[in-house]
Amino acid sequence: MDFFEVIEKRYSHKEKFLPDSVPLENLELIAKTGITAPSGGNSQCVRLIILPDRAAIQPVCDIAPTAGLTTAPAAIAVLTSAEAAAQTGEFNFEREDYSAAVENMLLAAVALGYESLWLDFPWFNADNRKAALAVLGAPEGYHLHAVLPIGFPDGSGTRRGKLPFSERVSYGKFGCKK
Amino acid sequence: MDFFEVIEKRYSHKEKFLPDSVPLENLELIAKTGITAPSGGNSQCVRLIILPDRAAIQPVCDIAPTAGLTTAPAAIAVLTSAEAAAQTGEFNFEREDYSAAVENMLLAAVALGYESLWLDFPWFNADNRKAALAVLGAPEGYHLHAVLPIGFPDGSGTRRGKLPFSERVSYGKFGCKK
Repeated sequence: MDFFEVIEKRYSHKEKFLPDSVPLENLELIAKTGITAPSGGNSQCVRLIILPDRAAIQPVCDIAPTAGLTTAPAAIAVLTSAEAAAQTGEFNFEREDYSAAVENMLLAAVALGYESLWLDFPWFNADNRKAALAVLGAPEGYHLHAVLPIGFPDGSGTRRGKLPFSERVSYGKFGCKK
Repeated sequence: MDFFEVIEKRYSHKEKFLPDSVPLENLELIAKTGITAPSGGNSQCVRLIILPDRAAIQPVCDIAPTAGLTTAPAAIAVLTSAEAAAQTGEFNFEREDYSAAVENMLLAAVALGYESLWLDFPWFNADNRKAALAVLGAPEGYHLHAVLPIGFPDGSGTRRGKLPFSERVSYGKFGCKK
């Protein structure tokens, strides 16, 4: 799919997914875009766990049963390695790095005809996060940031309103119009 | 350009650019992908300043004359509005939001045949950051995160090595192979 078409089509699908499975090669293609994203100092601190079916998703879903995780036929968990991130010294880029990886994967899902969601809020809760890291089998020193449900949407999702271009983009200096 | 081709082609161009100007409509197309990125709680806190020529870039470049900023025919400064970001309450997503916007724009530049760079390090220095915000005319309450040089590369840039897929992606649980 054309890059700009992907950009236009992507939205945050917060609703249910259809049960149709996502072929593993498509999940790998999506994951590959994630690890191809840039990283601060090329630390490549992002680590991904492909959850290819309901059996793999369910233990994570049980911790935080959102509409997406409850129905998605596949998902990708997004972690960072604190040790890898520490290569960049006094500056920590884990949030930038995982965000760029997530954005690539959200777009890649759309490019393949699926929808996805930057599902982070369940993991802001420390208990949820700890439980999820445990069921995912992550060793100490790995941070969980998001779990992206992936699949065909069950109906059309809700697109949130956006501010106009002119309110967010200036020319030459802040606030200047064209 | 096909989405996956864009992903493969993108790299961090840390070298010089050719002087050929970038048409304003292309810069607007790139900026549009930036503000189309998702944001935490849909706060849309990212603000962009298109620097369409050397005259607009030079005051920023004078503060931090990197190879990219010294030669780029165009650039886009990436800021966030603290007030807009505050809509999400106790959680602050400025770093995630600007990162997703930057990633979209880096990819968009490649989709249009240009190269770019996530140029953030000059602005880690508080004096540089303050000076850049001043020449950009940004009011108080706006944070500067990056200035992306955009243009045709002057020669082929250096691509940094990447860890293999198998070291960064697991199946089902952390560390598990296919």
